[in-house]
Amino acid sequence: MGVDGPPAQRRDRALLKRIDHVGIACRDLERSVTLYESTFGLTLVSLETIEEQGVREAMLMVADAPAGMSYVQLLEPLAQDTPVGRFLERRGEGIHHVGYGVADIDAALAAIGASGVRLIDARPRHGSMGASIAFLHPADIGGVLTELVESGRR
Amino acid sequence: MGVDGPPAQRRDRALLKRIDHVGIACRDLERSVTLYESTFGLTLVSLETIEEQGVREAMLMVADAPAGMSYVQLLEPLAQDTPVGRFLERRGEGIHHVGYGVADIDAALAAIGASGVRLIDARPRHGSMGASIAFLHPADIGGVLTELVESGRR
Repeated sequence: MGVDGPPAQRRDRALLKRIDHVGIACRDLERSVTLYESTFGLTLVSLETIEEQGVREAMLMVADAPAGMSYVQLLEPLAQDTPVGRFLERRGEGIHHVGYGVADIDAALAAIGASGVRLIDARPRHGSMGASIAFLHPADIGGVLTELVESGRR
Repeated sequence: MGVDGPPAQRRDRALLKRIDHVGIACRDLERSVTLYESTFGLTLVSLETIEEQGVREAMLMVADAPAGMSYVQLLEPLAQDTPVGRFLERRGEGIHHVGYGVADIDAALAAIGASGVRLIDARPRHGSMGASIAFLHPADIGGVLTELVESGRR
């Protein structure tokens, strides 16, 4: 719990720049999108099928800040035998993971890997909206499936 | 999934202004704080015991944006027979809830309650760092324990 430098400098050294999204597993994507639209007034900005991850995915914008946007990400599995399908079976609907924005995902993965945390993705892969993403092993992050996101150039 | 107005106007109407924090249940607060400091370079900005919620709570800053700060919130239960203690027993360490920043928590609770979502807290209570907070019923938000946060005046 060391304090080593003024807050602005310490923030510059932080690998994580924002909470990019909270990833939420759901059984019915359209129903969940409508819930977040009608209850909270959020705006749907992307709807994609990502075969590689076995999901249909909706992004609803929460904030648009200088460090980048923040979203609610709703995930419906394409089949039961997918990571999100197995999560739903085991735990039911709810928060599946958290994604943090990073400035340089290759540099972040190298630094985090060197700290001893196991990487699910040693190299970034394609996420939604043109982003580069990589997951860290939840067993090394206190049970939290943690994703790094470098936003796509738009 | 209606689209009713340009993005800036729709954002103004959104009740949620940012992801204030991700609340993470852990068994050993000091160890978890050290993990987030050493792995991600985050800065510890608050450490409080909140008897009413049965937790010791650490806030680590992720972002400082115009709409307000975003944090990783680490929660260690004060006893097994507390909400976070029961969560750990049932599910183990991991993401416990998500907190969204709102501009006016009384207005947000009134609007969300009127939409049919059950409120765990009909009136705001005191959170950490001088914030006013209220929880919504996870059964009405797709299994997600959802917290509203109006930041304290500092």
